[in-house]
Amino acid sequence: MPELRHDPVQKRWVIIATERARRPQDFVFSQPMDNGHDCPFCAGNEDATPPELCRINYPDGTWKARCIPNKFPALRVEGELERAAVGQYDRMNGIGAHEVIVESPDHNKDLPDLGVEEIAAVLRIYRERLIDLSRDIRLKYILIFRNHGARAGASLAHPHSQLIATPITPRTVALELESARQHYQVKERCIFCDIIAQEMQEHRRLVLVDHDFVTWCPYASRFPFEMMLAPRRHNHDFSALTDADLLKLAGHLRNVLRRMKASLEDPAYNFLIHTAPAYHMQNQRSGWGSTITLDWHWHIEILPKLSNAAGFEWGTGFYINPTPPEDAAAFLREVCLDERAQC
Amino acid sequence: MPELRHDPVQKRWVIIATERARRPQDFVFSQPMDNGHDCPFCAGNEDATPPELCRINYPDGTWKARCIPNKFPALRVEGELERAAVGQYDRMNGIGAHEVIVESPDHNKDLPDLGVEEIAAVLRIYRERLIDLSRDIRLKYILIFRNHGARAGASLAHPHSQLIATPITPRTVALELESARQHYQVKERCIFCDIIAQEMQEHRRLVLVDHDFVTWCPYASRFPFEMMLAPRRHNHDFSALTDADLLKLAGHLRNVLRRMKASLEDPAYNFLIHTAPAYHMQNQRSGWGSTITLDWHWHIEILPKLSNAAGFEWGTGFYINPTPPEDAAAFLREVCLDERAQC
Repeated sequence: MPELRHDPVQKRWVIIATERARRPQDFVFSQPMDNGHDCPFCAGNEDATPPELCRINYPDGTWKARCIPNKFPALRVEGELERAAVGQYDRMNGIGAHEVIVESPDHNKDLPDLGVEEIAAVLRIYRERLIDLSRDIRLKYILIFRNHGARAGASLAHPHSQLIATPITPRTVALELESARQHYQVKERCIFCDIIAQEMQEHRRLVLVDHDFVTWCPYASRFPFEMMLAPRRHNHDFSALTDADLLKLAGHLRNVLRRMKASLEDPAYNFLIHTAPAYHMQNQRSGWGSTITLDWHWHIEILPKLSNAAGFEWGTGFYINPTPPEDAAAFLREVCLDERAQC
Repeated sequence: MPELRHDPVQKRWVIIATERARRPQDFVFSQPMDNGHDCPFCAGNEDATPPELCRINYPDGTWKARCIPNKFPALRVEGELERAAVGQYDRMNGIGAHEVIVESPDHNKDLPDLGVEEIAAVLRIYRERLIDLSRDIRLKYILIFRNHGARAGASLAHPHSQLIATPITPRTVALELESARQHYQVKERCIFCDIIAQEMQEHRRLVLVDHDFVTWCPYASRFPFEMMLAPRRHNHDFSALTDADLLKLAGHLRNVLRRMKASLEDPAYNFLIHTAPAYHMQNQRSGWGSTITLDWHWHIEILPKLSNAAGFEWGTGFYINPTPPEDAAAFLREVCLDERAQC
């Protein structure tokens, strides 16, 4: 059973994933990316994965996208949450969920290479898993994320996203929730709505704007070409999006990812969705109120991995970004995508 | 002039390093490590660097180690600190210091390949720069760190460490200082002394112990083979170490780094020193008291880069560590170093 351990100085939790334990010797050789032979995520190899949690099919009955439990989970869904002190340290057993969303039956198609309808199917699976897992009151937060490329931590090349649900609210999310709550308390406005208004007005950090969504390079970007995608109208909950909303989001996300892929030679990147915590959805079902509906605004962070975090970043929490977000946004804005007649 | 920018949601500062700006096009090709031709850090090429800040010589008058300003500084030492609002965002101009400690005239000797006396010379330069820069009251914190290998963010192969002094206390340091302060307030004991006592008693996470220093794999290690090195006796201030202390520390650090290098095939890694903040040293000179002398304990974090942080880590601040620190410590403890007769 994996273990959650708490550091008393840095006040953060770590998952010690004994189930996927790598012996020290394993580190001497770096892990190669798979080349497509015997890929467990490819069409025809469905038996190689644990039983499917959900899928979305093409009209011919073959699958477009599917969700499966991770075969080597960082957290496990079975059992009661147990907490204990270990001297002055703290531990919990590793209760949670770890799932994989296989985005396409085709090994060689990356997410932005898929059609808008196909990307929308992936987003519908995200929504379905968020709704389903938020019923489990042991889970406090559900993070959906995507690692593309070895530098971004991907260990399998077949296009996929992941979901990890944790029994505590992660520090990064708690900090963002608290900033949003404090801002609302003082101003009675959503901090993200305020940021979007300033970005729309200043314009120079915008990458893509359409009727429903906006993507920009944040004012204090940590990484070159870092982007933030959010709905233009206030909305705290990704899981409340309709099929029509998800189709529009798929088009916007596809456009942004294609810009990045075309202009930066298919860089490694992570994206992650910050939506309302599972405990909020649980409270809502119980009829409890919460300011999260007013002060929180779901968003997607897109983090290209063009440089490596170094000693300074690890030692301070500061980042050094060699590319001003204004330059990065101008560069991405001006990318000429094939599907557009003019640039 | 570089700029410090603050993110209002994630409450962190970023250095937008316009002086070392890389145009978007620069990212398309990855930066190669230099191969030793025309290396500005090699003996004989001293003219290629900015004027030296300090050096330590061999008896024959040639240099053993030297410190120079970074030619492409992330922060600049000239000017007044200016603060401004940018709409709802915050910025400062990038006042600070960014220096390079060249650890050896020899391009191909890495830090653990040097002799104990030579490593001690590097540590004496660390101490000298900490003392000198802490006199500048614009500076709040001075971080000394080392990046080894491209995966750990090193862009030059010649062995060197760096120093960055910031005009604000970095978030990570502020959090650690606050944890230590709170612990002392309740218990009247140093949190690091408590941790060292538990580690010495449990033994299974220890890597190396001698009369003065101890290195262990932290209970909640973020990364495989992460290590923490600290003095066994309470001491808040690295810059107060004597030459004799630094010689002992050099021997201990050399042993630990050689273990890592020998057993993990020279992995990329970062190490960083967390010592008392510059503002504390400034207060002491002014005769002001502070609990930092009682509640803070300097330490060195050693972070091998065997895996990449991925979307989950960026989205949560949680880490998934596939190697329990107990296994990592046992592995490192049992490494047979050439200089030891028995293992």
